[in-house]
Formats: sequence, C-alpha cells, structure tokens
Amino acid sequence: MLSVLLEFSMFPISDDGRDGSSVSHEVAKIIDVIDKSGVPYQLTPMGTIIEAKSMKEALSIIELAYEQLQSCERVYSSLKFDIRKNKENRLKAKIQSVETALNRKVNH
Amino acid sequence: MLSVLLEFSMFPISDDGRDGSSVSHEVAKIIDVIDKSGVPYQLTPMGTIIEAKSMKEALSIIELAYEQLQSCERVYSSLKFDIRKNKENRLKAKIQSVETALNRKVNH
Amino acid sequence: MLSVLLEFSMFPISDDGRDGSSVSHEVAKIIDVIDKSGVPYQLTPMGTIIEAKSMKEALSIIELAYEQLQSCERVYSSLKFDIRKNKENRLKAKIQSVETALNRKVNH
Amino acid sequence: MLSVLLEFSMFPISDDGRDGSSVSHEVAKIIDVIDKSGVPYQLTPMGTIIEAKSMKEALSIIELAYEQLQSCERVYSSLKFDIRKNKENRLKAKIQSVETALNRKVNH
Repeated sequence: MLSVLLEFSMFPISDDGRDGSSVSHEVAKIIDVIDKSGVPYQLTPMGTIIEAKSMKEALSIIELAYEQLQSCERVYSSLKFDIRKNKENRLKAKIQSVETALNRKVNH
Repeated sequence: MLSVLLEFSMFPISDDGRDGSSVSHEVAKIIDVIDKSGVPYQLTPMGTIIEAKSMKEALSIIELAYEQLQSCERVYSSLKFDIRKNKENRLKAKIQSVETALNRKVNH
Repeated sequence: MLSVLLEFSMFPISDDGRDGSSVSHEVAKIIDVIDKSGVPYQLTPMGTIIEAKSMKEALSIIELAYEQLQSCERVYSSLKFDIRKNKENRLKAKIQSVETALNRKVNH
Repeated sequence: MLSVLLEFSMFPISDDGRDGSSVSHEVAKIIDVIDKSGVPYQLTPMGTIIEAKSMKEALSIIELAYEQLQSCERVYSSLKFDIRKNKENRLKAKIQSVETALNRKVNH
C-alpha cells in the first residue's frame, strides 16, 4: 500500500494561454479532467492536491494536466510529492495529525 | 493594495527533528505561531497557505516559521508565491474563480 | 519540437533512508540512473535539471528516480517544469539569454 | 555558523511584465541586484541559487528580487531552502559530496 500525495500548479506563461493576468479557465480545464479521472483530490488557492496509489497513477495525472495546455507556447508547473508506505486517506489524515498535535481544530 | 499568497511547507530532515517519519509536531509548532500572528491562513495536506498584504509581512512569517525549527541541524522548505495587485481575499476568491469557470462547486 | 526542462530534488525523510543528515548516497543513486538514461542533465547544489523532448520522457525520469528510493518508508520531492515549444538546448540557451540581457557573463 | 541555500525563480505572469514568452530581461534585473549584493550565487537554467549566512540575509534577497518586478500586476515565484548548521561553501560542497559518493565527476 502506497500513498502518493502530489500538490501541483500548472499554467501558461505565454500570451496565448491567458486572459490578461487570469488563468482560471486553464485551471478549470485541468480540474475537470482530474475530477473525471476519479482520483481523490482537493483544490486549494495555490494548486491541486491529489492522492494516488502509485507513482504511475500520479504521473499520469501530470501528463493529463499538460495535455489540456498543450496548445500553449510555454507552460510552467511547480509540484511536490510526499510519498509514504502503509498509509492511506492522507488528504484528511495529515491535517488531523496536526490538529491532534495542536489539540484543537484548524480551518474552522 | 497587494495580495501576497504564500504556500509553504517546512520540516526538519535531520534525525534530531523528527519522530521516525512523522513531522506533525514540528508542523504544529509552525501553525501555532501563524495562528497567533493573525494573518489569514489555510492548512492543507501539503502545506500552509497564508495571505499577506506585503512581501515584508509574508517574509516575516517564513522567518517566524524557521525560528520554531532552529534547534534542528537541517531544515528543508519548499515555497511558492502568487503576488497580485489590486486584489484581496484570494484564499477564497481563487477557488471561486475556478468554480465559476467550471460552472460547478468543487471540494464538496 | 518540445523542450521540457525539469528541475527536481528527491530524498528520503524517514530514518531508514539517510545517514544522519546526509542524503548524498541517495542523490548519487538517482544521478547514476539519469546519467545512464542518456538525457542531457545538470547537477546543481539544490537538485538536478534535465532537458527532455517530451513529457513522457521527463515523467519516466521521475519514475526512475523514485525506484532508486522505493525501499524508504517516506520520500519527498520538489519539482518544477518549464515546457516550451520550438526550442532546444535550453540547458545552455537560457543562461545565455540572461547573459545577453545583462551584457556580461555570469557564473565565472 | 549557518548555511542557508536558497534556490528560486521569480517572474511576471501578467502581460505587462513579459515580451511574448520571454522573461530574460526580468531575470536579468534580478541577477543584477543579487550580483551587487555580494552574496555567493549560481545561475542555473531553472533559477538562481544563493548561499546566505542567515535567514534574514536570504529573505532580504527575496525582497530585493521582488522590488525589481513590483511594477508588474502579477508575479509568481517558486523557492526552496536547504538550511544546515555548521556547514559552509555548500554551493560547491554539495556537488562534491555527490561526486564522492558516485566516485566520478559530473557536469563535465
């Protein structure tokens, strides 16, 4: 059992892929394919976090995300992985661990 | 008016700062000082997102976070900034922009 | 023609994968497989930069890197992509563009 | 004694700060102020790495970098820190550690 948490943002940095300073439409296209993929995910103000069960699954999501932007001349992406054995449901469990250590709720 | 969104994670990578593979206690110390600072923030499974009104304010939070871990021999941190003029309340507004583009709610 | 620049670092954050605070041996294993893959790369003090000709090639390097660390209980990785059409040899060309704009050499 | 390695990239993602897809001029302005600051640094194809002797010094470089871009409506930055006690000259030493573990030179 493997829990592959992947946080990433991906957006065009060429003129052809944006509407002024906004990239909401590009982000929306990526969220749409992630949603359809069935992988658990969470949208944050700075990116999207998915929890995959293998590196292959996580990497296929990155590939799928880029496909949504492949008409753009230049694309930038920032990512981080936290990969841990013998754990699951970490989208919720990691926040609960911090709340347990703090002895109070956060984000409320 | 400036909106400085900063997403970051910071943790010890030396033996002295962790309990096996867990860093929940170190993360909790950092969340505690952010909470006391009064800056709006959101804890995610992969880090913490704050919204500051200046670079100085955002950078002071990074300094404060490191102070909580400064007894550790080695500390690693990954961060990203999204800095935008003439905007505010982007912890909520950025997710709403994507939901508007998608024409449905996410994270529900 | 596509130039996929990928900068990444990957290391164990569990006790089983490090020697005190040092992760040089894990980094060395990853560099070794990248070197054998034949993809152009540059080792920096903060990670490794490769230039792939497709997302598939770049993602396969990430998968290969994780395979070197898969005995570790917990692995962390931070990555960024700069993907650009109709360009090549950007490991050198991007530094030269900045030097041209500065009108002097750097890193000397 | 503290060695604060900071790798970062910072660039405009609004139309006002770029020339088509190129950000070389913005990167050049940032390199110029880093060079004048006297802090040891290395330019890579994916960002700039500095070695500071304190968090304060490293954070002041980030502030200085943003000042070069503050006329832009929107700025993005991706950063990572590797902070270690009782070490110095790690811009060179970290690569040498990997070369020692590999038992051969790289980047040649």
